[in-house]
Amino acid sequence: MAGFNVRSLLVTGANRGIGLELVKQFLEKSNPPEWVFATCRDPEGERAQQLKNLASRHPNLAIVALEATDPASIKAAATRVEEHLKSSGLNLLISNAGIATPSTLESETPEDMSLVYATNVTGPLLVSQAFLPLLKKAAQGSPQPGLSCSKAAIVNMSSEGGSITNPFAWELGHAVSYRCSKAALNMLTKCQSLGYEGDGILSIAVHPGWVQTDMGSTGSHQAPLTVDVSVQGILNVLPTLSKKDNGAFVNWEGKVLPW
Amino acid sequence: MAGFNVRSLLVTGANRGIGLELVKQFLEKSNPPEWVFATCRDPEGERAQQLKNLASRHPNLAIVALEATDPASIKAAATRVEEHLKSSGLNLLISNAGIATPSTLESETPEDMSLVYATNVTGPLLVSQAFLPLLKKAAQGSPQPGLSCSKAAIVNMSSEGGSITNPFAWELGHAVSYRCSKAALNMLTKCQSLGYEGDGILSIAVHPGWVQTDMGSTGSHQAPLTVDVSVQGILNVLPTLSKKDNGAFVNWEGKVLPW
Ligand SMILES: NC(=O)c1ccc[n+]([C@@H]2O[C@H](COP(=O)([O-])OP(=O)(O)OC[C@H]3O[C@@H](n4cnc5c(N)ncnc54)[C@H](OP(=O)(O)O)[C@@H]3O)[C@@H](O)[C@H]2O)c1
Ligand SMILES: NC(=O)c1ccc[n+]([C@@H]2O[C@H](COP(=O)([O-])OP(=O)(O)OC[C@H]3O[C@@H](n4cnc5c(N)ncnc54)[C@H](OP(=O)(O)O)[C@@H]3O)[C@@H](O)[C@H]2O)c1
Repeated sequence: MAGFNVRSLLVTGANRGIGLELVKQFLEKSNPPEWVFATCRDPEGERAQQLKNLASRHPNLAIVALEATDPASIKAAATRVEEHLKSSGLNLLISNAGIATPSTLESETPEDMSLVYATNVTGPLLVSQAFLPLLKKAAQGSPQPGLSCSKAAIVNMSSEGGSITNPFAWELGHAVSYRCSKAALNMLTKCQSLGYEGDGILSIAVHPGWVQTDMGSTGSHQAPLTVDVSVQGILNVLPTLSKKDNGAFVNWEGKVLPW
Repeated sequence: MAGFNVRSLLVTGANRGIGLELVKQFLEKSNPPEWVFATCRDPEGERAQQLKNLASRHPNLAIVALEATDPASIKAAATRVEEHLKSSGLNLLISNAGIATPSTLESETPEDMSLVYATNVTGPLLVSQAFLPLLKKAAQGSPQPGLSCSKAAIVNMSSEGGSITNPFAWELGHAVSYRCSKAALNMLTKCQSLGYEGDGILSIAVHPGWVQTDMGSTGSHQAPLTVDVSVQGILNVLPTLSKKDNGAFVNWEGKVLPW
């Protein structure tokens, strides 16, 4: 962890939950990044209050508007980030924003299928397209050989609920739209790993565990992991990833999960 | 194959390609089904001509309108099929309709992501929801133990292009929207297998091979399989499937594919 030196990173859906904690823990590192870009849907609104509090203490934190279902908003975010970074690239792109809607196989609606997919899959695709030039620039500007999260990487926040081999907690909730979206996100990650390896960019799907956030707390069962422990785990795993892990699906403890 | 006695089946996207050939080969069996429901988007139009020719020779073939992206059309199709079947159920539901759009990781659009998903994933979900009562009726009315395609089954036409482990022919085309949709369809199939096993319904994802159809013939490379051989293979595999295969991903030769 000590040697894990990320110059710049961006986290989507950073105003609460796992995204917010990722931003906090990166800012609190002994060697913090030069730039942490925390994106959220409404930087001016109340829901961004915790980010604004953080920004008042951390001048290296920039809050940027990004709505994952709006291509224009994503492009505008990339332009703003580029202005901040000036001539340097973006090292680490964490597509964390996501939604889950409760449903059963019988009650799942086309509207939810469409919205969950747009947010959880098309969003990360468009985000990676928009930030690709900045990721490439980071890779080209890096003296490091191979692939790593401190050089240039796409991290997609996936879920074990999207493991086709072993769909986590089926008995607690079908959530078909969510499961299908995360299986598709894993495929997107594999595609990104195949497409961008030659550019020096690592792509990885991460399952954060079952975490005590708004999303993780739906239903009557209590999530076992605190946000703090989940994100500590992720921050321990990211520095260990290299070319051999490109396109893999790992959890917060670094364990490889089956598709 | 001889002992494979399907009383009734439905195929979506049956006016051309693999769907049309499935309908043909089922009709030409020595023990043909009592009812074959061939659905297409426009039964009155020119694109349904081959189905109309078949129907003039096969009174057990009913052509039914079904647009996979239109929930109302799917419900109306289920009502029409129920009228034909009177008091009996539907044994075999083949969700075959699908689209693929060419693209690269960089050029993939939100519009294609959305349309391909609506057609290839939400369509099969809505179709299974609408026909579930008829599938349950078939399972309840069957003297057969266990699960089988002649009792009650959902067959989703998937693709090895959607195998996350080994995305088929990446170098020939990224087709990210298509790959993500088929990975999601595999997850849907797994969900259906978990949700409907207790109702006596088998769920399976089938890869038909790389087949000489309109879809299979895009690009400069020639698909190796004729539609005839692919569908013969599928018709040999379906009768072999039982409870142990529930939720699996198999190809036209019966080989299990990795997710
Ligand atoms: N918690 C778990 O147990 C768990 C388990 C597995 C995977 N995950 C994954 O981890 C990620 C974070 O989850 P979480 O538990 O932190 O969820 P959360 O507490 O519900 O937070 C979700 C975040 O995503 C943002 N978001 C949602 N839709 C968005 C959109 N269209 N555009 C931009 N931002 C959007 C939210 O912003 P707003 O405040 O504006 O809504 C919020 O910042 C998700 O991808 C989730 O699927 C979580
Ligand atoms: N060919 C291959 O090599 C290959 C390989 C792997 C998997 N597959 C899968 O096999 C299935 C059949 O493919 P194919 O090769 O036969 O394709 P195809 O020749 O292009 O035929 C596609 C069929 O789907 C129908 N369809 C498309 N969109 C629809 C919608 N919104 N509503 C209703 N019907 C719709 C088409 O109807 P219209 O005539 O009205 O457009 C047509 O009947 C697909 O799911 C495909 O992904 C094919």
